Amino acid sequence: MLAQRLIERKRDGGRLDPGEWRALTLAYAAGHVPDYQMAAFLMACFLRGLDREETAALTDAMLASGNRLDLTDLGVARVDKHSTGGVGDKVSLVLAPLIASLGIAVPMMSGRGLGHTGGTLDKLESIPGFRTTQTLAEARKLLETVRCALIGQSREIAPADWKMYALRDATATVESIPLIAASIMSKKLAESLSGLVLDIKRGSGAFLPQLERGLELADTMIRLGSDHGCPVVALVTAMDRPLGRACGNALEVEEAIATLKGEGPPDLLEVTYALGAEMLILAGAAATHDDARRKMEKSIGTGKAAEQFQRVIEAQGGNPGVVEDPAVLPQAAECELFKSPRRGFVARVEPRAIGRGIIALGGGRARMEDPVDPSVGFVIKARPGDWVEQGEPLATIFARDRLGVETGRHALGQAIIIADEADPPMPLVSHRVTSAGVEVVQQA
Amino acid sequence: MLAQRLIERKRDGGRLDPGEWRALTLAYAAGHVPDYQMAAFLMACFLRGLDREETAALTDAMLASGNRLDLTDLGVARVDKHSTGGVGDKVSLVLAPLIASLGIAVPMMSGRGLGHTGGTLDKLESIPGFRTTQTLAEARKLLETVRCALIGQSREIAPADWKMYALRDATATVESIPLIAASIMSKKLAESLSGLVLDIKRGSGAFLPQLERGLELADTMIRLGSDHGCPVVALVTAMDRPLGRACGNALEVEEAIATLKGEGPPDLLEVTYALGAEMLILAGAAATHDDARRKMEKSIGTGKAAEQFQRVIEAQGGNPGVVEDPAVLPQAAECELFKSPRRGFVARVEPRAIGRGIIALGGGRARMEDPVDPSVGFVIKARPGDWVEQGEPLATIFARDRLGVETGRHALGQAIIIADEADPPMPLVSHRVTSAGVEVVQQA
Repeated sequence: MLAQRLIERKRDGGRLDPGEWRALTLAYAAGHVPDYQMAAFLMACFLRGLDREETAALTDAMLASGNRLDLTDLGVARVDKHSTGGVGDKVSLVLAPLIASLGIAVPMMSGRGLGHTGGTLDKLESIPGFRTTQTLAEARKLLETVRCALIGQSREIAPADWKMYALRDATATVESIPLIAASIMSKKLAESLSGLVLDIKRGSGAFLPQLERGLELADTMIRLGSDHGCPVVALVTAMDRPLGRACGNALEVEEAIATLKGEGPPDLLEVTYALGAEMLILAGAAATHDDARRKMEKSIGTGKAAEQFQRVIEAQGGNPGVVEDPAVLPQAAECELFKSPRRGFVARVEPRAIGRGIIALGGGRARMEDPVDPSVGFVIKARPGDWVEQGEPLATIFARDRLGVETGRHALGQAIIIADEADPPMPLVSHRVTSAGVEVVQQA
Repeated sequence: MLAQRLIERKRDGGRLDPGEWRALTLAYAAGHVPDYQMAAFLMACFLRGLDREETAALTDAMLASGNRLDLTDLGVARVDKHSTGGVGDKVSLVLAPLIASLGIAVPMMSGRGLGHTGGTLDKLESIPGFRTTQTLAEARKLLETVRCALIGQSREIAPADWKMYALRDATATVESIPLIAASIMSKKLAESLSGLVLDIKRGSGAFLPQLERGLELADTMIRLGSDHGCPVVALVTAMDRPLGRACGNALEVEEAIATLKGEGPPDLLEVTYALGAEMLILAGAAATHDDARRKMEKSIGTGKAAEQFQRVIEAQGGNPGVVEDPAVLPQAAECELFKSPRRGFVARVEPRAIGRGIIALGGGRARMEDPVDPSVGFVIKARPGDWVEQGEPLATIFARDRLGVETGRHALGQAIIIADEADPPMPLVSHRVTSAGVEVVQQA
């Protein structure tokens, strides 16, 4: 009865007070409000929106539905990074050990890949033995010993969000900025962070392709952070093409390790440094962006960052030998070069088409319950703006079998557009958003 | 996957083609689309609307989800009446036997009471033994023998609507004109009617209080009827006060029987005649409204109508003795007069407050699964505009116990407003709507 009244009110454009948000959210988490009522409510929220106070109240309610990872007595600053997701985005795999190597705690709870975007958990689990299902007590232990925990969303934290997200995914109610912001922040605030850095992707491969929507999400999350004493800084980064070269779980782990050793692709390194600098500044471990960058370069240059990743992998049950020898990762049975059908400029490397290609190869999931083959994917050498000759290798396809190679070839044929002209790609890091406002970092 | 795409499209203001409506509706009826996806879809429909073609396609799909009651070989015209529901609205109980007594078949599938409005099935079931759960084959038999079937919505007819309506009721997605129209018409069209008369209630006690919304519903249903070769005529009638005097299941049966015997309250008789005249004209059994009225008056005057009700009750397993002696109906243990607290005009008899009072007495349901006590309710003598003295009886309360009497007194105290002035009540029958347009019958 209560639920119906609240659905009705939101349906008619009204608002819920904080007590109502809390009652509804906790009743849903406890199973007292059925999925179908929550689904109708979420669609009403999607179409009618939530104001700032409502978004904060929903965040609080989801936070209150579970436990917290209290790290305030850890004695070091705690920072995390969240990305809205993209193709080839293995920044977390580089950033977490890199920042932890500088003495900062990184409690990083990640998700699985869904749709065209990959997920950090799937990537990590391609390392033999790597576990991501730690309890909060185990996560705390990891943070005490190796300053880093790369784990899945614990069911202990914000269980209401867990349940609600699965429902939103099935009911076309995901792309709502207040719902997204509340979902992310309820989990991040449970980590008792000193600061949070957001990577807001934009461009055709982003979850919210338009800049305005990305900035709106950043703003909503920054306000939620402010309201809860957690400073948030957001960078808007390019997802009009994949980030780095590797796309596919094990292939991305290999590229992340190379990057930690100083051998990564420049675009991946640039985004990693930009986000890492914000994390170090929020943690009080660097005074300026230049200072932060020098510290990160040094950690990579001296091998400290790679060693840190080894320790993290070992602490989470994975085979640390992967850092020395990526061949311990699952290997695709077939690999083949994909060559340019003509001479010209690389006009587009379309991330959605690449992401869909990975799903078609068996390396991503269309539905949450689908299994994932970690070995398959693409390594794409071609960058937008490159000049290429006919027959020049643009990418390598990694597949389970010959049929997979064909599937991959078809996907790359659609994703990589060669033309007589090419527009310049988006700037890698275009905007920086803080509670003070939006700052243009790099003009398009 | 299909369902998500359709939810998304409707969410974004798009439309489904007839094939998509059919696929989604049948998949839902078959349990292949879960309630939570349908709930989100219905909320999107509620907020985004359906165009005329979509409404027709949904109606067809719901109709196609079940069987039909084919009565075309019955040899007589078939007409039905549908009301949008009100308080004290026992018109169906009078009209069905009255029209059947004139040789017309009346296949009338009714609903149960929910919220502040009563339901014909609950009223009928207060007659000892009366069954409303006939199969379509049994309903056909009833129509062959007594020209009338007063039954519940068969699960054989439009099962998709059945399931969808229960879901809408739980998810605050009922009050959508295209969804209401499709729901009603999918069932009515399954009855192979020669014509359908709608009673669109307006005023504070109506489901859609505003005239404009009522006219919109009438128009939508008339178009759906036209598209399917079933002429539909709608009358807009007053629900700013209860219809007749009795409010409560057994009490209303008693009043309906009195009306069939020529002893009913004038307002109930006027609405019954107005709707009945439309039914007779649609059936080809009367040339004009006056002609129809004379025929109905004659049937009541000669006792034919009351006898017909006796036959219908007997055919449906009920005790036909109720027509001679209403004391066979369940009787409330307590009854008490409710007296006017002051002298003045009866300014309001608020139907929603009366309806809620009946629920509070145990005679209605807040939830579908609630049991109903048929004996309780009110008989309200006071009519808006009446002059009353302090202490003059305004109504009688029928309750289970003393506590119920108190509850009833409280409800009537809120429902019946005595004041120094009274606005004139709404005209009983204000508008007539056909495919040719809206005609004002009686000016406010």
